[in-house]
Amino acid sequence: MNEGPMVELKRFSINQMTVKQLSLPELTEACVRLGVPGVGLWREPVQAYGIEATAKLVRDAGLAVTTLCRGGFLTAVDPGRRAEALADNRSAIDEAAALGTDTLVLVSGGLPEGSRDLPGARERIADALGELAPYAAERGVRLAIEPLHPMFAADRCVVSTLDQALDLAERFPADQVGVAVDTYHIWWDDRAPAAVARAGARIFTFQLADWTTPLPAGVLNGRGQIGDGAVDMRAWRERVDTAGYTGPIEVELFNDELWARDGVELLTEVIGRYVQHAL
Amino acid sequence: MNEGPMVELKRFSINQMTVKQLSLPELTEACVRLGVPGVGLWREPVQAYGIEATAKLVRDAGLAVTTLCRGGFLTAVDPGRRAEALADNRSAIDEAAALGTDTLVLVSGGLPEGSRDLPGARERIADALGELAPYAAERGVRLAIEPLHPMFAADRCVVSTLDQALDLAERFPADQVGVAVDTYHIWWDDRAPAAVARAGARIFTFQLADWTTPLPAGVLNGRGQIGDGAVDMRAWRERVDTAGYTGPIEVELFNDELWARDGVELLTEVIGRYVQHAL
Repeated sequence: MNEGPMVELKRFSINQMTVKQLSLPELTEACVRLGVPGVGLWREPVQAYGIEATAKLVRDAGLAVTTLCRGGFLTAVDPGRRAEALADNRSAIDEAAALGTDTLVLVSGGLPEGSRDLPGARERIADALGELAPYAAERGVRLAIEPLHPMFAADRCVVSTLDQALDLAERFPADQVGVAVDTYHIWWDDRAPAAVARAGARIFTFQLADWTTPLPAGVLNGRGQIGDGAVDMRAWRERVDTAGYTGPIEVELFNDELWARDGVELLTEVIGRYVQHAL
Repeated sequence: MNEGPMVELKRFSINQMTVKQLSLPELTEACVRLGVPGVGLWREPVQAYGIEATAKLVRDAGLAVTTLCRGGFLTAVDPGRRAEALADNRSAIDEAAALGTDTLVLVSGGLPEGSRDLPGARERIADALGELAPYAAERGVRLAIEPLHPMFAADRCVVSTLDQALDLAERFPADQVGVAVDTYHIWWDDRAPAAVARAGARIFTFQLADWTTPLPAGVLNGRGQIGDGAVDMRAWRERVDTAGYTGPIEVELFNDELWARDGVELLTEVIGRYVQHAL
């Protein structure tokens, strides 16, 4: 039986999507064997496996669920769609609570069809948070607004910088709504280091992927292996630490080349890269 | 004989790359026939046709050369490469002067191989500008730092926002170093409207392309047809006008679907879209 995580891995968490080729049982078994203490989970595979079944699986394995991805998609104008989105987010909050995680990551949503109104979309996110934050807080779940890279601004997330995310989060109690700091999305931003300091206790999760080029078509699946690209991982880890963040460090890669590999072998490589580049 | 540009087109300029399927003679002939008063040119096709030959062609056609793309690539660390880049930029400045344009657009350069130092790269751009700005000014050429979309930060341009571009430009006389405002690169940035106001007389060129998804592999050739995407063109045109910009408005599209079409037919569509969405 594993004696417990190696000291270097005590903050490490593997996001499920990094090794999506592994089933939940395979993932948890590998984590236990390799000394990985935490996993970041995604709603769809967890729903497919079963919420309670997943909760039991990770609990029995002694793993922490560091985040649940994702809520969000809060920019609809149409009242019916807005109501659906809010209901879906309440479900996501319930799932997070059932899984024993205190952090639901929000991908806030892109421009509605035919709209070019970015500020309006951002305000609708704030409106939605006004309803969701108390609901989440009652269930011990915090909402982490994740700024996504500006290349996703139209179709996925109108929140493109850490400053914009904080402009929204700071309208709510600091223990209810915070931010997800993800190196892939913010590494280029000269204002992001100061925004990390500004975020302080509102940093609810810290996620890593490296920036590698060329980007693939659709730009979703270009999140590169730690150490392969332009991001100074250690510098960002030091910044969040200096800001007071003591929480988990999740590696979240989306990458067709990596997904084609053996999942456990990939996980061991991720661990090695994390130790080499982020600690 | 064409009586002169239609009033609506008096600020319109067609960037050569939009209709790269047209040769320079075809392009100038179409511009004259359609009443397009200006063209934005690129170094390589102009060099291929001949600098003096191009200058004569556009002069005889009565066309303004609104910009020359591009100088830049100023982030090298190696002294030999730095010297080569400066020499190449001086050539670009000479070409701009020979073509009769007062504006050389700078794509400042990405991270050198193996480097993760964004601030260092930006400082090397400033150093290079210190040498190039006077050289350009002596020849009647202004340098326009173009912030590129953050998705190009690693491999093409470490200057990713209009604010960053102004932080560099403002170190130099306002009639020597300014910025290129390009909707494709900055439309997502909530700080860009204020940055346009900040730029004021340092706006040396205003270029349009629309943001459409999905992005193609390599993300270079996704610049969409005016009106097809997420950008409120008129709002941006009004912002630069309010900032005091009275110069040309260049449409610069890179798009495999558009490039596959008849070049003159495409140009007429671009003109129509410009009138419909930007004026």
